[in-house]
Amino acid sequence: VTRGLIAIDWGSSSLRGARVSGDGAVLEERSFAAGILTVPPGGFAAALRHHFGDWLTAPDTLCLMAGMIGSRQGWIEAPYAACPANAADIARQLTWVVPGRVAIVPGLSCERDGAPDVMRGEETQVFGALQLFGLGGAARVTLVLPGTHSKWVQVERGVVRGFATLMTGEVYALLRHQSILARTLPVDDAVFDEAAFDAGVAHSLRGNGLLGAAFSVRSLSLFERLPEPHRPSYLSGLVIGEELRAQREQAGDRIVLVGSPTLAPRYERALALLGARTESVGSKATWRGLFDIASTLRS
Amino acid sequence: VTRGLIAIDWGSSSLRGARVSGDGAVLEERSFAAGILTVPPGGFAAALRHHFGDWLTAPDTLCLMAGMIGSRQGWIEAPYAACPANAADIARQLTWVVPGRVAIVPGLSCERDGAPDVMRGEETQVFGALQLFGLGGAARVTLVLPGTHSKWVQVERGVVRGFATLMTGEVYALLRHQSILARTLPVDDAVFDEAAFDAGVAHSLRGNGLLGAAFSVRSLSLFERLPEPHRPSYLSGLVIGEELRAQREQAGDRIVLVGSPTLAPRYERALALLGARTESVGSKATWRGLFDIASTLRS
Repeated sequence: VTRGLIAIDWGSSSLRGARVSGDGAVLEERSFAAGILTVPPGGFAAALRHHFGDWLTAPDTLCLMAGMIGSRQGWIEAPYAACPANAADIARQLTWVVPGRVAIVPGLSCERDGAPDVMRGEETQVFGALQLFGLGGAARVTLVLPGTHSKWVQVERGVVRGFATLMTGEVYALLRHQSILARTLPVDDAVFDEAAFDAGVAHSLRGNGLLGAAFSVRSLSLFERLPEPHRPSYLSGLVIGEELRAQREQAGDRIVLVGSPTLAPRYERALALLGARTESVGSKATWRGLFDIASTLRS
Repeated sequence: VTRGLIAIDWGSSSLRGARVSGDGAVLEERSFAAGILTVPPGGFAAALRHHFGDWLTAPDTLCLMAGMIGSRQGWIEAPYAACPANAADIARQLTWVVPGRVAIVPGLSCERDGAPDVMRGEETQVFGALQLFGLGGAARVTLVLPGTHSKWVQVERGVVRGFATLMTGEVYALLRHQSILARTLPVDDAVFDEAAFDAGVAHSLRGNGLLGAAFSVRSLSLFERLPEPHRPSYLSGLVIGEELRAQREQAGDRIVLVGSPTLAPRYERALALLGARTESVGSKATWRGLFDIASTLRS
């Protein structure tokens, strides 16, 4: 009997889990609004049992957890693995909370422009996505993981060489809801307007930074050159376009996009405007990444 | 008897005025927390009388107002003058609210990267500063006006060719107080730390955009490489450094900085790190600009 896996993705705001068979098939998935910030200190073991207790009772089950659960605010702080690092380096540096049974996957750290950078959870998606696309041996791949804090990850032959965090989603939300631009934007997002989004991407790609590009939301509105319902799409294009402008050097690489169903199509559109060749995968990258770590432990 | 001038700078959040003699001397200044957003619709004439009524009773007094008072939310909308424009173009396009007695100076508009850009109030500071430094005929000058929305203005022989608005001060405040970075920053700003500020400027100048640079506040803090009291200075350096990175092409120009006593020293420091040659002037640029427009009307 091959050992079963309980794969857990435990972030700041959500808790997701999958039951994975010994041959890697995802048998069942669950998702809860039970991120680590909702769990009282010392309450993580109980929270895990509460949501996944029935799965955990199966004999010889292994449970691997990725994400902010390994941060200082999580169950126990799992030290970062330093880049360059491959999947085997990650697997060797698990932090066990129940020896042999329940472990936390380390995040990754790297040094970039004289400052450190960090990720937690995305490393698992990266290694999972590489496996799903058969790119574990590719000479050079860039993985883009859009979100509140987007990650751009450079991988060479299965080794993460380095990565960059860009605060794209968070800055979008601040500009959208808290800045002077909010005054010219509708309270609710209307339908996504592709032309306005593309115009925003193009504006950022022509410009040289978001501090300058962002003001165009206001000035275009002032001269009635941007209809009110299209403004959130335009701003979204500006901010995502700025992310691409900053990372433009990597747009020539083979790009794997690991994103949610809402964000991925926007990044695909924007990357296509840059002429980048993109493949996409969603949440199953996490389950595949955790399955591969589990396989390493078995062998 | 030469005609006296009441010079008014009426912005969103403050109202400042100066009584200027016929030969340009500033005789008296007043400042109130009575920005246009505090004045009810239709209440601007009364507000002006309330704060400056005694000055306005002098016979044959001219009152010129610059700033957001000419916006859609102000007394009356004063149409923008389009770039290229010099001081005489501005003086010809005043909007009179009391004919021959009280007028609003138009803002400027320009086209940049396929979108319009606008200013209101800064045009008066620009023309005033050029006069104060004897640069009305200079082949090429860049004026930098730091603030919530910084302006970088290109002037050739007294003509504003174009300008850029950068949302530096506003984005700083959003990141400082509303973003995830706020969690690692002290509630109150401690004393300004020059070394941390310089490190922030240098980090942005090495990087390629604020979305990526900003996250270094968090990662440096996480690894205890940036002491908590220094973090606001570092973030300030990052954001101002990003403004300079974006406008780097103009750093080779002769630069005139028109800024407040709190912001100007930070910009002087940052511009010096770029090797720029900078001269500074404060609020008297506004009074000089309005005096020059008044002189044009007299002649």
